[in-house]
Amino acid sequence: MKTGRAEIVCTGSELLEGRLNLYVPLFHERLAPLGFHIVREQSSGDSLAAISDCVKGALKRADLVLVCGGLGPTFDDLTRQAAAKALGRRLVHSKACEQILSFNYGLKKLPPNFKDQCLLVEGAKPLENTNGTAPGQLITRGRQMLVLLPGPRKEWEPMFPNFLEAEIRSFFPRLKPVTQVKLRIAGLWETQAEKLLCPVMRRFPDTRFTILAGPGTVDFILSGDDSRGAVGKAEAACRRTLGTRIYGSGEASPASAAGEKLKARGRTVSSGESCTGGLVSQLLTDIPGSSRWFLGGAVTYSNAAKIKLLGVKASTLKRRGAVSPDCAREMAAGAKKIFRSDYALSITGIAGPDGGTPGKPVGLVYFGLAGPGGTRVFRRQFRPGRAFIRACAANFILDELRKIIK
Amino acid sequence: MKTGRAEIVCTGSELLEGRLNLYVPLFHERLAPLGFHIVREQSSGDSLAAISDCVKGALKRADLVLVCGGLGPTFDDLTRQAAAKALGRRLVHSKACEQILSFNYGLKKLPPNFKDQCLLVEGAKPLENTNGTAPGQLITRGRQMLVLLPGPRKEWEPMFPNFLEAEIRSFFPRLKPVTQVKLRIAGLWETQAEKLLCPVMRRFPDTRFTILAGPGTVDFILSGDDSRGAVGKAEAACRRTLGTRIYGSGEASPASAAGEKLKARGRTVSSGESCTGGLVSQLLTDIPGSSRWFLGGAVTYSNAAKIKLLGVKASTLKRRGAVSPDCAREMAAGAKKIFRSDYALSITGIAGPDGGTPGKPVGLVYFGLAGPGGTRVFRRQFRPGRAFIRACAANFILDELRKIIK
Repeated sequence: MKTGRAEIVCTGSELLEGRLNLYVPLFHERLAPLGFHIVREQSSGDSLAAISDCVKGALKRADLVLVCGGLGPTFDDLTRQAAAKALGRRLVHSKACEQILSFNYGLKKLPPNFKDQCLLVEGAKPLENTNGTAPGQLITRGRQMLVLLPGPRKEWEPMFPNFLEAEIRSFFPRLKPVTQVKLRIAGLWETQAEKLLCPVMRRFPDTRFTILAGPGTVDFILSGDDSRGAVGKAEAACRRTLGTRIYGSGEASPASAAGEKLKARGRTVSSGESCTGGLVSQLLTDIPGSSRWFLGGAVTYSNAAKIKLLGVKASTLKRRGAVSPDCAREMAAGAKKIFRSDYALSITGIAGPDGGTPGKPVGLVYFGLAGPGGTRVFRRQFRPGRAFIRACAANFILDELRKIIK
Repeated sequence: MKTGRAEIVCTGSELLEGRLNLYVPLFHERLAPLGFHIVREQSSGDSLAAISDCVKGALKRADLVLVCGGLGPTFDDLTRQAAAKALGRRLVHSKACEQILSFNYGLKKLPPNFKDQCLLVEGAKPLENTNGTAPGQLITRGRQMLVLLPGPRKEWEPMFPNFLEAEIRSFFPRLKPVTQVKLRIAGLWETQAEKLLCPVMRRFPDTRFTILAGPGTVDFILSGDDSRGAVGKAEAACRRTLGTRIYGSGEASPASAAGEKLKARGRTVSSGESCTGGLVSQLLTDIPGSSRWFLGGAVTYSNAAKIKLLGVKASTLKRRGAVSPDCAREMAAGAKKIFRSDYALSITGIAGPDGGTPGKPVGLVYFGLAGPGGTRVFRRQFRPGRAFIRACAANFILDELRKIIK
């Protein structure tokens, strides 16, 4: 066994009634270095039968099962019973847990709902909760491990460094950590990226590949056992294939990649935006420290604002319209001048849903990119969807910015 | 049968490798009005056996099973095969789907990966995809319905109003809708809202209540059987309690609520942003038709830009600094003047993580709001977290804007 199979069971009716489940990525982050792939996640409401069924199913497939939530003191906390039922074991009262709780809370006699939290699945090892009342539970059966964790993040998170990492490593001594590399790509559609990367995927059959499309971007994720350098070699092959189309890795974005390069070269940028309405500024200023290289932006939705703030000529707007290469060029040049930045970008287009014409359909966007060597203009036609067009447009010009920064 | 049992299967290795699953709450919102409770959600990697096993399990328990993702054209899109396997049916090629795709994309001959997307599970009804290539599929078996949806939200979302709502209602005619009302609140923290609403919750024991905190906002969700008007009465009681703190309901946001009011009154707005870096403009211009009432914005990160674009006095910046009530006032007044808008808002503060001082800590934000009656200034201190501070600040001033529009 090189990598282990983990499953996650999240309990809580709120997860099925409107609340986002934020935990799966967090569990992935903690389990990958221990050698586990998560192969399935299940969210169940607060029903004894349903939780028990989820756990039973997970134990049929996985080496390690984490169950999160439902260990609290209220009527809808049913994970202890469900786990016992799934394993066909009893619940036993733990004197030790009771003593720890009494001590931590300075209580001579525990209230009844505290006592319920001291019920352990037969054979379970309790995991002390440093930020709450319900202990976690660690149960082994043959070569499998089942872990019950309290629901609140601040309660389960410390259990990993405090107990779980060591317990899991010693119970699964032969697992190799899963190495994951996320390459971020711009300027290609998903199918184009796949076509280019197909030969690489064939050359590295032991590495797992996942391809994800974003608006104007593609993520290509490699994962596997890197102890003999396989993931690193696959990554190098991808990088050779894609070249500068890779704008970064890990948590990079087109904005952060452009920002990094501006910072490294000591350059500054500004923006003039029409149809993206401030999205580019917002993405750039999301980045801590962006005030060093982002000087400002003008969101010029109206023609009057384009003229007044960016110095676009009234005659250009009259002759060619706001969605035109000439307007894009004047907007970028105007932003560069007014903000006195090294580079300036501009975006003007039709985000829709209204405002399209046969000659200028929804999704048509012109871009300007002004730099020390003059101003370039780009034209792109994106598929409909207001938010999609805006996001594609922002990512497109941010990536062009990254590429021209000298 | 009063409410139906639905299960969701989400496919995609990325959901188990770091990407948040954002869809379950969205499916809940769409299924509740059709009379369904979601009883379980499963996320599976891109494995034929695993997806098929998830679907098979869900079909053992639920009346309605939605499978989302894995209908695309690439190697890891396996949902068609998995669903066919789970049902013990074949995949058949659909000439009709091929014709629709050829027509929509103006192609005489479809490339091979387009053709794969025209494979339907035997007996399936295709659901046209108005924003992408892969059609959805609707399959019935006895009293059960299985629906396959493409992964991207913009592709599956229109299928609900276009086809699915009618199909589901007519196939499950006896279900009573779960009425859900989402009240959106600004200007209160979660615990303050809960305290105010506690008496209402006690008065309506048959209505379920959920409270969700956002950045500077709170959502209060009421749900239940409204056939005797219970949910409506509970809603009225909440509205009486909260008054103008409710900025909207359903999918409203502070930006859309302000925008609606501007539109209704025929007024216009502009913005001058520093620490939010264009977030307010971006939120306002996210709204289709915003060009009628949003005239533009200046993102003035640097002092030079504040002076040049918004007419902030150099002496103000020198004496009081950029993060000061005076600067906020001059920014708002300047934006109103330069964009010639009826209202203008401004934001200047310290979003962090760096740049805080004992006198002006991270999270301190000043706001200006200029209108026909003059300019008001606000001061708020938010808890740390760059993205949190920016989002709180944007929501705060957008809500103040909504309240002053006459």
